[in-house]
Amino acid sequence: MLHTIRYGRLFDDFVPGSIYAHPWEVTVDEGMLAFFAASFQDAMPTYASRRAAEELGLRDRPVHPLLLLNLGLSFSVHDVSEQAIAHLAYMDVRFPNACYPGDTVVAASRVIATRPVSTGDKGVVHVRTEVSNQDGEVVCSFERKVLVRVGKVAGRAAIVPQSPVDERAAVSPKLRAPAALLGDLPAPRRAVFPTFWDDFEVGDVFAHEGGRTVSEAEHMQLTTLFRNSHPMHVDERYCQKSSFAKTRVVFGGLVLAWVLSLSSRDTAGNAVWDLGLDDGAHPSGVLAGDTLYAASSVVAKEERGKDTGVVVLRVIGLKNTPARILLERGADLFSPELGKTAGRVPEKAVEITRTLLVRRRT
Amino acid sequence: MLHTIRYGRLFDDFVPGSIYAHPWEVTVDEGMLAFFAASFQDAMPTYASRRAAEELGLRDRPVHPLLLLNLGLSFSVHDVSEQAIAHLAYMDVRFPNACYPGDTVVAASRVIATRPVSTGDKGVVHVRTEVSNQDGEVVCSFERKVLVRVGKVAGRAAIVPQSPVDERAAVSPKLRAPAALLGDLPAPRRAVFPTFWDDFEVGDVFAHEGGRTVSEAEHMQLTTLFRNSHPMHVDERYCQKSSFAKTRVVFGGLVLAWVLSLSSRDTAGNAVWDLGLDDGAHPSGVLAGDTLYAASSVVAKEERGKDTGVVVLRVIGLKNTPARILLERGADLFSPELGKTAGRVPEKAVEITRTLLVRRRT
Amino acid sequence: MLHTIRYGRLFDDFVPGSIYAHPWEVTVDEGMLAFFAASFQDAMPTYASRRAAEELGLRDRPVHPLLLLNLGLSFSVHDVSEQAIAHLAYMDVRFPNACYPGDTVVAASRVIATRPVSTGDKGVVHVRTEVSNQDGEVVCSFERKVLVRVGKVAGRAAIVPQSPVDERAAVSPKLRAPAALLGDLPAPRRAVFPTFWDDFEVGDVFAHEGGRTVSEAEHMQLTTLFRNSHPMHVDERYCQKSSFAKTRVVFGGLVLAWVLSLSSRDTAGNAVWDLGLDDGAHPSGVLAGDTLYAASSVVAKEERGKDTGVVVLRVIGLKNTPARILLERGADLFSPELGKTAGRVPEKAVEITRTLLVRRRT
Repeated sequence: MLHTIRYGRLFDDFVPGSIYAHPWEVTVDEGMLAFFAASFQDAMPTYASRRAAEELGLRDRPVHPLLLLNLGLSFSVHDVSEQAIAHLAYMDVRFPNACYPGDTVVAASRVIATRPVSTGDKGVVHVRTEVSNQDGEVVCSFERKVLVRVGKVAGRAAIVPQSPVDERAAVSPKLRAPAALLGDLPAPRRAVFPTFWDDFEVGDVFAHEGGRTVSEAEHMQLTTLFRNSHPMHVDERYCQKSSFAKTRVVFGGLVLAWVLSLSSRDTAGNAVWDLGLDDGAHPSGVLAGDTLYAASSVVAKEERGKDTGVVVLRVIGLKNTPARILLERGADLFSPELGKTAGRVPEKAVEITRTLLVRRRT
Repeated sequence: MLHTIRYGRLFDDFVPGSIYAHPWEVTVDEGMLAFFAASFQDAMPTYASRRAAEELGLRDRPVHPLLLLNLGLSFSVHDVSEQAIAHLAYMDVRFPNACYPGDTVVAASRVIATRPVSTGDKGVVHVRTEVSNQDGEVVCSFERKVLVRVGKVAGRAAIVPQSPVDERAAVSPKLRAPAALLGDLPAPRRAVFPTFWDDFEVGDVFAHEGGRTVSEAEHMQLTTLFRNSHPMHVDERYCQKSSFAKTRVVFGGLVLAWVLSLSSRDTAGNAVWDLGLDDGAHPSGVLAGDTLYAASSVVAKEERGKDTGVVVLRVIGLKNTPARILLERGADLFSPELGKTAGRVPEKAVEITRTLLVRRRT
Repeated sequence: MLHTIRYGRLFDDFVPGSIYAHPWEVTVDEGMLAFFAASFQDAMPTYASRRAAEELGLRDRPVHPLLLLNLGLSFSVHDVSEQAIAHLAYMDVRFPNACYPGDTVVAASRVIATRPVSTGDKGVVHVRTEVSNQDGEVVCSFERKVLVRVGKVAGRAAIVPQSPVDERAAVSPKLRAPAALLGDLPAPRRAVFPTFWDDFEVGDVFAHEGGRTVSEAEHMQLTTLFRNSHPMHVDERYCQKSSFAKTRVVFGGLVLAWVLSLSSRDTAGNAVWDLGLDDGAHPSGVLAGDTLYAASSVVAKEERGKDTGVVVLRVIGLKNTPARILLERGADLFSPELGKTAGRVPEKAVEITRTLLVRRRT
């Protein structure tokens, strides 16, 4: 008998309320951290230095939140989006507990809602995904919406066993940062990146200077390492037939990580935690060879205690044009791209709201 | 005095019965595991999750067997195949003991036989290679045949010291899996990939859906990391003159790892060990940019105990064409390509027999 | 307010005697070691095998000295060379203490001298950089000279806080190798690379056979991982406007590591430490796709004790042409390229003097 096993789901395969325990179970190790650091030059010392992390009261360098988001997105592809046409939105991304190298993580997704699109051939599926460590602590949770075709995946149900239900996945975390970081912090031993909480003013705009060209090899390695199983990112022949770009498209979670890292020397060098990501979308796709740039605007700031404050940034990523050039032309970079009736920015590849816990000047 | 030191051997340099202790001595670390996982998206949880491995009675995630095979092949290039024209066959590949991250491995090869080819300008060399850890346990053993030109390597013997003889390399292992995996196994905590031992039927064919495009950078990184010193894989100028393809050719051990990983979600998601690889060959070479696909047929299955059974699969790898398309055209994918008088499959890049220890449904 | 924060310095920003504590603070882990090993196939067993290192009296595999040099160069880009036109010279590179995986490193640079160039639009800045671990031990120190344009970086001083002064950076290390390696050594358990201290003769020339093609992806990954923030290496759009090559240029520290690793099977397989690198320069730039080759000449050798001796090699790296071909044409490979009035070797990409501590034959 000939088997062609398919994974992912079409619109009519999704049942609101169902929970899919994704099969991947992976020990996050120092090698995975190095792959992340080799593509995303992030300035936040908490994630790069064991010594800096220990000084903050953590037991080791925590795994970078964007790495955890990428793992959660990727693990869920097998059940949620391997047949999807597009990833539409990120919402409510949180990192309530630290994950450390050596931890083993799994993920599960619950279907929150399904909504057919008026054209009748597609629908939007809204899921909540949680990534947990071996102790059952949620280390990353998020919601997302994906666009899928109507129908059911042939040959799927007959072979896939019933997934065990993980009730944890229905519980939303209350804490949004490791407890050690929410109290008083020791003074920094050395802190030489420029921007502290005190330096941000609402309305400030940062046109980040540096760009990063994306290579074919590294985006495939990261996609494979994170267990993202969508052929759109790694199967050139599939893409020549089925991708909107007629070639491999860079996984959106990586685009987000590139753009946030490009902004990090200017805005996150004295940050101690990512409190969350909201209202995120990918207005356009990124291909190998594109060069990414970033801009940030300060949306809000809030006092918290004597050592830290909260900064809310709207961060956008651009393809092949530095932000400063577009700003000088008067481009409207920071309004949400989806839904704009005029002033679209075709270079925009990602937009998201990032909330950071940042040290105050001492 | 001008020295041009060459490594590897030509046909007349090989002495049947000689043992070559290869000079490379390498600690396998988490970084090497991540490089493997970043190219080969393997579904077998034993190798990916420390927690899953510990539940099976192992002390940590074992190093992936295909990584060990790649190290053994690569370490032996320096003495065996750096001057070779082609790798002809793999035989009797076994993984009798687990290797763990942090172990330091070495390899030695014994010349089993040499046979001149009738044209008189080349010969076939048959060697047995063993990879051992710091405690002298064999963690991978295999035989292979390579095709080399007649003659001797100029400037080799004068400089290379006599290798110490490692008698272990002559002893064939009896055990073919870590003892912990051969007894009763605890029930899986979660097992959500589809195929258990019970689901395989002799004669079943799997046309695996996913493909993986090979990038220039990742195949060179893996080749370098594994200490494969053949210029065919990393020296473009050498290849323009001396490679059959006039460009760099992907190391066959990597092609094998790609193809087995492409088959793994469908067939190995509930496997616990690789019992062996036999009758392997590379009918054609793979270049950067090629997209690999896989197909498997179930050759045999065997009961073993209440928790596991043995499945024997013939697995093939194809270039740039999914298996389903070739099967629909009636292609004879599973007969050995070498020696076929008709019905050759020019897309075939690798063929091998894989024996897996697989969980039964509980 | 629109901020465009720039880093690095122009000629008039440098103040002789100032010390810049570079902001990067990074835990060197097994993943970083694997990235190094995946590009640079180095034969020195001390760095590759925990077992071999422990037998020498070290507590673990030390981090490869060239990796430390790359980190020091990269960390200093943020303050020293992010606006530089060219890196002119390496001097007095030393590795006085071993650095181990798990150590957290920082770096600081002191401005030794500044000298305007006669054209009036540029100047040469001479700095000394030290890389230290969490215990304040210097694990790598070096001097270098960079060429920068006159002027000051707009928008830099206003935002960057004063760097804390690290007096350690002014102290030159006396010891140039870990103490364990300077006494008697145990006999090697196995040593099968060809060349011992006894085998080198002053005047010997090695035309190393192997070449390595540089891939776009791996050089960007290493540059990003090491925290080199110069856009010349990773920002294609910037390079089309501002790079002499009109495309991304490979970071010189990587070129040096490739060339030394290409020479290592022939000359460093029985070395136990890198005592230093001197008089280094990059006569020309390297681009992705270039294939690097190496040659070495024995400049000096010296007895040290019953187990080891010192060998001084002049090592050069060539683009796209093996050394043997150029030597057969009578090329003057080993004279310093900068300053030659005739006989220039346009293929030369790097030249440096390497001092190795090498085992004697037992």
